[in-house]
Parts: sequence; structure tokens; C-alpha cells
Amino acid sequence: MANAVLSVDPRTGEPRERVATESTPQDVDRAVRAAAAATQALADRAARADLLRAAAALLEDAAEEIVATADAESALGRPRLTGELARTCYQLRAFADVAESGAHLDVIIDHADPDARPAPRPDLRRYKVPLGVVAVFSASNFPLAFSVPGGDTASALAAGCPVVVKAHPDHPATSVLCARILRAAAVKAGLPEDVVGLVHGFDAGPELVRHPLTAAVGFTGSVRGGRALYDIACSRPRPIPFHGELGSLNPVVVTERAAETRAAEIGAGLAASYTQGLGQFCVKPGLVLLPEGPAGDAVVEAAVSAAVPSGPLLDPRMRAAFLAGVRERAALPGVQEVLAAGEADADGEAPLAVRPGMLTVAAARLAGGGEHQELLEECFGPVTVLARYGSAEERDAVLDALPGNLTATAHLAADEGGDGDAARLVARLSGLAGRVVVDGWPTGVTVAPAMQHGGPYPASTSGSTSVGSTAIERWLRPVCFQNTPDALLPPELREDNPLGVPRTVDGVHLPS
Amino acid sequence: MANAVLSVDPRTGEPRERVATESTPQDVDRAVRAAAAATQALADRAARADLLRAAAALLEDAAEEIVATADAESALGRPRLTGELARTCYQLRAFADVAESGAHLDVIIDHADPDARPAPRPDLRRYKVPLGVVAVFSASNFPLAFSVPGGDTASALAAGCPVVVKAHPDHPATSVLCARILRAAAVKAGLPEDVVGLVHGFDAGPELVRHPLTAAVGFTGSVRGGRALYDIACSRPRPIPFHGELGSLNPVVVTERAAETRAAEIGAGLAASYTQGLGQFCVKPGLVLLPEGPAGDAVVEAAVSAAVPSGPLLDPRMRAAFLAGVRERAALPGVQEVLAAGEADADGEAPLAVRPGMLTVAAARLAGGGEHQELLEECFGPVTVLARYGSAEERDAVLDALPGNLTATAHLAADEGGDGDAARLVARLSGLAGRVVVDGWPTGVTVAPAMQHGGPYPASTSGSTSVGSTAIERWLRPVCFQNTPDALLPPELREDNPLGVPRTVDGVHLPS
Repeated sequence: MANAVLSVDPRTGEPRERVATESTPQDVDRAVRAAAAATQALADRAARADLLRAAAALLEDAAEEIVATADAESALGRPRLTGELARTCYQLRAFADVAESGAHLDVIIDHADPDARPAPRPDLRRYKVPLGVVAVFSASNFPLAFSVPGGDTASALAAGCPVVVKAHPDHPATSVLCARILRAAAVKAGLPEDVVGLVHGFDAGPELVRHPLTAAVGFTGSVRGGRALYDIACSRPRPIPFHGELGSLNPVVVTERAAETRAAEIGAGLAASYTQGLGQFCVKPGLVLLPEGPAGDAVVEAAVSAAVPSGPLLDPRMRAAFLAGVRERAALPGVQEVLAAGEADADGEAPLAVRPGMLTVAAARLAGGGEHQELLEECFGPVTVLARYGSAEERDAVLDALPGNLTATAHLAADEGGDGDAARLVARLSGLAGRVVVDGWPTGVTVAPAMQHGGPYPASTSGSTSVGSTAIERWLRPVCFQNTPDALLPPELREDNPLGVPRTVDGVHLPS
Repeated sequence: MANAVLSVDPRTGEPRERVATESTPQDVDRAVRAAAAATQALADRAARADLLRAAAALLEDAAEEIVATADAESALGRPRLTGELARTCYQLRAFADVAESGAHLDVIIDHADPDARPAPRPDLRRYKVPLGVVAVFSASNFPLAFSVPGGDTASALAAGCPVVVKAHPDHPATSVLCARILRAAAVKAGLPEDVVGLVHGFDAGPELVRHPLTAAVGFTGSVRGGRALYDIACSRPRPIPFHGELGSLNPVVVTERAAETRAAEIGAGLAASYTQGLGQFCVKPGLVLLPEGPAGDAVVEAAVSAAVPSGPLLDPRMRAAFLAGVRERAALPGVQEVLAAGEADADGEAPLAVRPGMLTVAAARLAGGGEHQELLEECFGPVTVLARYGSAEERDAVLDALPGNLTATAHLAADEGGDGDAARLVARLSGLAGRVVVDGWPTGVTVAPAMQHGGPYPASTSGSTSVGSTAIERWLRPVCFQNTPDALLPPELREDNPLGVPRTVDGVHLPS
């Protein structure tokens, strides 16, 4: 008898409804085979674009139901979820544009040259083809934008890869609803509905990664869960690419001069950023390097005195982990709670609400490993660590001790712009992370071609991004055709470029 | 006492000279740390280009010694090695051009847009930065082009990554000589010589992959050795990308009509291709699907009657594996030796010479797994398997049973060009391999922007290519700068583009 998949209210911990049953190995096998059988239908780029646009339109049509369902399961609130849905639909349409333009095909054509040195050159034409079925692991904290209709799904479909999504147990009802809409969108676009499949349950994850027809994996989640699945992907008889976004501390450096000139603004900005979405963002600033002394103190004071939201976390397990994580960190020698995170106890709060908090510690304790190493690991939820440094050397020693990050942020004074020290700091941060932010906050990941959402391990398991147009590169591989008659080439590579895709021909880039 | 590294004459199996000692773990550590310390110096793209061009010039200056040494260790012959050196120098200069152009930086700039939907967009500027120290594993069969001064080294240096090369035991003297030249080229370009390091010995391989400062690996070699190192790369605390080219069968399909119209040409071409370099190429055609009946017979006859070279293989171990591999395959039920490969016994041959051979088998035996599966595994050396098919279905069933390949080739008749069957065959081959060749042979890998030398596993462990300009992508990761003042940006991302690199700005590609 298969286990029930329940939708749970995180505000109370009570089950809301029975949504599905956990997928058996047979269910997973069926879903992957059905997706694989639909691959050929996705070869048509125009149909893929139609699918993605139809999905966006149908999601918008169902906005009310989607937002209500997602809020009931995630407690993220309707305004945030309305915004997330808009972002999700924008993303689907942006990938429709990418698929249609053919820019992601990276077409390179080198005409034959019998006189080429050091050897005659045959006609060579390269473009990129889809890898096959992509397994997508939904994130807990974005029930839409990083889940069933999210960036991994959108980019994989745009690339021509069918997807099988592993639903996150925190929002199964939203997942079922969105999968139904995506499948309906496929039918609207004249494609088989099996270009999107959905599976549930813990055991379905490893099954999905092990399946011989799974060609690649997109994952957003914890270091522990992501690493376990990554290990499975690499140890298959035929290993497959695993694009996982696991964990990130997202360090922020505030220079002495910045603290002197902008303490109130920086403190308020920090409070807003680490508590946004109750700290349940992979780009939450989890470590802030602040100067010792009065200027740094003023930043702390501004951050402590800012009004911050309290509320329930995404699920009771996450809440327990947050409370334990804060307790353990606060108990370390030399750590002070300048704002105590913990259970919210105010009237009118949801029973499972928590309140944000901040810890401080001397930066010198962080560079040496040991028990304070825990402060350099992500603690999911509304808490951040303020590490006070006495010198640039002390600050840099902490940066050098950090694992990879999605983001790294510098707050500078206005007059530090042209300064060698500031340039060195920014360069150092670029060695730590996939995105460097200056005088801003890492929360808020813009969907744009230049975005990089991914960084050195454990921020991600590959050099790729999961947000922005180049996220599509994860699901493609190059194929070169040598000496192939025009009529036998895919249309994207034919001499007269009938589909008008951008190409680089004999070294010259030709836009579409 | 460290073990001696000996240079051995493959024509006789006798040691030639003592070249070095096997690297200890301390030696490996020293080499990687020295390379890591040289990383910053490589940040200057112009200096990298100078280094690569100086290396080409110095290698050419030493051509006589290099070719003589490589021939003495590899028995590949002076004409081939002279050509390989020319190719190697061409490749170094091609990557100098890439480094200089900045095309590999993939610069994308999205200007801030406060009115962007669904959210205001900050200024975002993305380019690619080098990963760090690259470990390069030399190939046995290309002592120059896929070894110390080869494509992995050239592309990594072009990307800004120092390299530590694991010398192949088949050509240690050539490796030492080339490493010395590359280090001298670095000094000429004003760079530290440690941008190129060299280590020797079996145990140095795993040490190099495990080293915490090793950031990525390039490998060319066997499935067994490559997979073992890949597994180490993936199981590190911080996994690193492993770009390995492991093994490939390189199937060739000859259609019925092609055999009818071009049997003599195809047979002669096949004989030349599978025996070129005594079959010691990763792109050797190892499986040829030929139609049953008189047209296919005529291809076999033409291939059998062609004059083929004999000679010594790269080393005695490889020779033993080749002879055993041929024996095992020939002993399978239904397999005939139409040209018996084995020890060469003619007068005037080198003592360890072998002669090429061909096996035939009914294609129907290959699709079902079982003992005939061995025929679908690469046998390194001058042997190929001719599988005779009775129908297109039988032929396609064999193709469907194949693992991934570097190349897949179709021989068609002139009138099959516009034919639906031929187009379907070419499309099917593109699903199997990184490069599809029509009416040609896979041997001969052109160094050109559109080249793809890599394919589905086990052809390679990643979607990347190890030949051609895009090979540089393996050693880079994207970094995005958000809201960063111009003076703090790397020059490649500054508004006025002082270095003139190609960029995509607000969706428009601007050549340099």
C-alpha cells in the first residue's frame, strides 16, 4: 500500500488534504519512459516556444487558485506568491524567446578549405542538441519559480528536453496543480502531455536519478540532499550531468569607510535582506563582515532596531532545524545574540511562527577552523552572523576560509570607487561566488541574460547558472557535422539558414 | 628510494634511458602549489597569448630533437610526428588568438532598467573567469598534440589556468623536453615558469586529482583509467569538473546503395582509416555496418586486398592487450577473421611489430547483449569489426545498442542525398556521437572552431570538446557583477570596453 502524500499547513503543522500517493519505482519508470517517448515531438523549436507561452498564459488564468494553494502549503503569503507567479511566467516566456531565436544552439560553421594549414579543412557545422529527459528536483522555498513550472523546467523544455519533476513534499498540491497546467499547455501546443511528468516521495528521487533514460538532473535544495543525489548521478554506469544548487553563506563585507558614512542605511538594508521571506532564500546574507569600533557598532544598532517580520517557516522540520541551528551557534564561545532568534510568542502569531535574529562574533575566531566553522555553514531561516574584523587582513582571512557561494557583496563608501583596496576586495569576492553585488543586497535574483545564479561548490555542483538565459546551456551538448550534404543537415545548419538562427561563419558572428 | 622513470623503445621493448624519478606525493603537492601561486600572473590575457606563441616558436626551434625523441619512444615515425608537431604549434597559436580576442569570455551586459517587468533590473555584467589549476593527463597515442604541449594545456593556459601535466609513461623523455620548452616560453612571456608543471608515475595521477588546489581535470586515455580518476574527482569533498575522453567505437554505416556504387573506394578508405597510425587513434573506425550480399562483399574484398602497414604499437603492454583482444573477439561464435591481425613475422620488421586485421560477424548477433557485447567495446590497435546487416531494422538495432561515441560515420550513394532514409540515418548517428561524418572517415580531427571532439559517455565524461576553440570553455566559470561601479569592474566589463572584447549588450551582439 503506497504512502499518502499530504499537503500540510505550515502555520499549524496540520494536514490539509491528501494529494497523491508516493510514487513507486514502477511509477518513476513509467514517467521517465513516457517523457523519453515524447522527446522527438519536442524537436520542433516553434512548438516548444508555443508550449512555454501557453504554460505562462494558463498559469496566469489559474493565478488565484495557484496562489491560494501555494500560500496554504507554504505560508509565504499572497503578495510574495503573486510576485513569484509573475516571475515564473516571465521566465517561461523568456525561455520561449530563447528557444525561438536559436541563440542557444551556438551554431558555428567552418567552410571547407583545401588550402588550410596545417591540414586541409573539411566542411564543419556544429550546433547543440538536447540531452534527453531532465529530472528536476523542486525547491522548498520557491513553490513556483524553482519548482514544477520553474527555471529548470522552463530551460529544459526550451532546450528540447522533456522533464520529470520530483515534487517537493512541502507543496505537493501546488505541484500537482502546476503539472496539470503544464501538461494542458503541451496539448495546446500540439505536443504530448508527457513532456512534463511528476513524481512524489523521498524514494522517487534516487530512482529518478538512477533511471537509465534520465539524461541530466537539475536540483535546488540542501547540501546533504543534493550531494547524495549528485553522488548517485556520478556513480551510474553512464554518469550524467548534475546541476545542483546546494548551499551558500552569501558573505557581505562592509568596509570601515562604508560603515562610517552609511551605517543607518546598511543596517536597515541588512535587516530587510536577511529577514525577507523569513530568510528562506538561497541568497540570504548569512555572514556579514563588519568593522570593529563605533562605525560598525552603528550598523549593528541600525540592524537590531529595524522592524522585522515574524511568521511560520516552510515546514515544521525546517523550523526545528532553524531553532536548533540558532541555539548551537549562539552557544559557541564568544558568540553573542544581539537579537535573539527563536519561537515567536506574540499574540496573533501563527502557532509555529519564529522571529529573526542576529549573532555577533569576532572575525578572528572564524578563520582557523574548529568549532566556529559552524558559523561558516548556511543556517536556513531568518538569522545572520555579524563577524567583527579589526583589520583588512583579518577580514580577508575569513573570506579565504569560506567555501563557494552564490553571491558575495561589498558595501563601500562613495569615495572608495576608484580605490585600489576596493578593487582588490571586489576581485577577491569574485573568486568566492558566482555573483558579486556592490552596495546592494544579494536577495532578489533578476531573470536576465547576464544573471549568474550558481557558484563554486557547494553553491553549485557545476559551473552553470539556474537563472537567466544561459541556464539553457545545461541541457545541451554540441554535435558537429562533417562534410554533410545540405539536404541531410538539420535546417539550423543548412547553408541558406532557412530558420534564420544566429551563427558564427568562418569566424564572423552573424546575428539572426 | 623513488622509482626510476624509464624511456623505452617500443620497437624492441628495451629501455632507452632513465628520464626522471616517479613523483612523490610531496612532489605533486609542490607542483600544484607552485602552479596555484602562478595563477595571478596568468590574469593578463596578452601575456597568455605571448606565452602560447612563444611556446609554438620554441617547439618549432627544437623540432628535430622533439621528433627524434618522440619517435624513439613511440615508434610513430618521423613524418607523422612532424605533422603532429605542426598541428600542436597551430593549436597553441589558435588558442593565443582566442585568448587575445576575448571571445571565450562570453561577456553579457544588461544595463539597469528601473521599468523592467516583472521587477526593476539592476546593472548586470557577466563574463567568465579561469577555474584555477588544471591537471592534464597526457595520452599515449599523441605524444605532442594530446600531451604536454597539447590541446588541454593550450586551452587551459589560454583560459588563464596554470597546468600540472601527468606525463604519460610511454613518452617521458618527450614530456620532459616539452615541459622544459613550455616553461622557457613562460619566462620569455614574462610569466613564472610554474604555470606549467610536470609529474611522473602512476600514483601521481590520483594525488593530482585529489589535491585541494586542483580545480579541474583534462584526461585522454582508457575507459578504465579515466573512470577511476573521474570517480576520484567526483568523490572529493569539493568535487571538480573532469573532462575525460575515454573510449569510442566510432561506428561507420555503409548503406546498400553506397556499397553498390562505391565498394572499391569505401573498402580502400576503410583499410587506410583503421590502420592509420596502426589503429592507435581514439577515432579509429572500430565497427563497420555493411550490408549482406554481393555489394557488401565487394567492400570487404576491397578492404582485405588493400595494402596495410605493420609495425610496433606504442608499448609492449598495449601490444599484448591488442593481441589478446583480437584473439578473444575472433573466438566468439559466428565471428570470422577475414584478415588475421596478429604478430608480424615478415623479415625486416621490428621485433615487436603487429599486423592489422578485420573480423566479420552477423549484425543480428550484436543487438542482444551477451558475449558479443565485447565486439561493441573499443579494441585499441589496428583491428575493426565488420557487422553485416540484412535490413535497415537490423542495422538500426545495432546502432541503438551502442554506447556513446566520439564519431559516427555514414557512407551514402550520391543519389541518397535528398532521401528521407538517409536523413533519418544521419539524425540517428547524431544521437550517438559528438561528430557525424558523411562519405569520409573519422580519423583526422581538424583543429577548427566548429570541431566537436567529445561525445556521450564513455566517449567523454562531459559534454565538452577537447579539440577546437570551444575546448577553452572547460576551464572557465561565469561571474556576474551587479551594480558595480565602472572603476571596480574588470576592464573586460567596463562601459567603454577598453580592451575591445566582443560582447552582448542588452541583447545585441557587438563584435570586438
